Amino acid sequence: MRSFSPAFCTELIELMKWRRDVRHFKPGAVDAGLLRDCLAAFSLSPSVGLSEPWRLVRVNSPGNRLKMLDNFKSSNRDALAGYSGDKATIYAGLKLSGMQEAPVQLAIFCDEETLKGAGLGAKTMPEMRRYSVVTAIMAFWLRARAEGLGVGWVSILDPVRLQRDLAVPESWRLVAYLCIGWPEKDDADKPELEKIGWEVRSPQAPEMIER
Amino acid sequence: MRSFSPAFCTELIELMKWRRDVRHFKPGAVDAGLLRDCLAAFSLSPSVGLSEPWRLVRVNSPGNRLKMLDNFKSSNRDALAGYSGDKATIYAGLKLSGMQEAPVQLAIFCDEETLKGAGLGAKTMPEMRRYSVVTAIMAFWLRARAEGLGVGWVSILDPVRLQRDLAVPESWRLVAYLCIGWPEKDDADKPELEKIGWEVRSPQAPEMIER
Repeated sequence: MRSFSPAFCTELIELMKWRRDVRHFKPGAVDAGLLRDCLAAFSLSPSVGLSEPWRLVRVNSPGNRLKMLDNFKSSNRDALAGYSGDKATIYAGLKLSGMQEAPVQLAIFCDEETLKGAGLGAKTMPEMRRYSVVTAIMAFWLRARAEGLGVGWVSILDPVRLQRDLAVPESWRLVAYLCIGWPEKDDADKPELEKIGWEVRSPQAPEMIER
Repeated sequence: MRSFSPAFCTELIELMKWRRDVRHFKPGAVDAGLLRDCLAAFSLSPSVGLSEPWRLVRVNSPGNRLKMLDNFKSSNRDALAGYSGDKATIYAGLKLSGMQEAPVQLAIFCDEETLKGAGLGAKTMPEMRRYSVVTAIMAFWLRARAEGLGVGWVSILDPVRLQRDLAVPESWRLVAYLCIGWPEKDDADKPELEKIGWEVRSPQAPEMIER
């Protein structure tokens, strides 16, 4: 039986603690080989029926970068309008995306109509395909962080508009927009939302209800 | 800057390669402390707006275990009826859940109406709450596997029926049903679906489309 050492387990927990959603990037390209190594985590991830429904779009052209940023800005403005008082003040001061600086930006989609896997495991819960994409993103996230790369997941976006702007097939659905690059600061001990007083984390494992 | 050694990265990749969806369990309880340690991975996972929307139900009573198994059996029968020829033969021979043996079984839900996080990041993409639950499951999965535990994600279930059977709040939505225990075999090199000829994995990192 393959076994992992206690030292590895300790470091794995450290990695999870340190992972963070990174929104502050310093200048510096990401080596193509390193990016590819990290993206290999997708292929090692579970997918329902082995359907591998992830589809990756690298957003590179200045025109498309601008469209993505515009999408974020208007979605963020709308979101801010939904808060008042202290929450509005805090929200307005948050940096919720690194889209202006991150050298690598990936829009990650789920192909809702892939034939791969022949639908196994996705009949009663078709959302399993999207969940498979999410597990792959999490594997990539941990892998990238272990290499010191920062990853930030932007969700303050109109997914339909983004999909139209990037001209991807109709059967694809946006799961995540990832900003990837080298983190500006080494302050990964706490989530930014906790530091700034937006919300607190639970200190321990979630409770289980018994049934 | 916190850094992780090349040796750790290599072992992390090994863990991801070896992870598997486990459906064959041998007898043997899972120590409560070990389970709690692994579940702590939830609290180290990203969640949109720090909403921590995961809700965990441990399904323990023989009556509820039977209801869950019944749900799986009828969903699986329906799924089999959708295949013909070779695919039907292979499907009929697959063991798609360890629900009859796994000592620990957890139904994991997303609280769609949690107030925690004040909706940050989930306005245009409310599915981000469910995706947060999925990232936490993936963190738990890797953590548990590093301890040698097996984890299997069952999705061949009618989620509405399951939710009714477990009498959880209406605002909760099923994300996963996890079977947890000690793996029967040490054959974690390949996905079962690949071994049995259902589907093949891509050998490398997914291609990126440029936009």
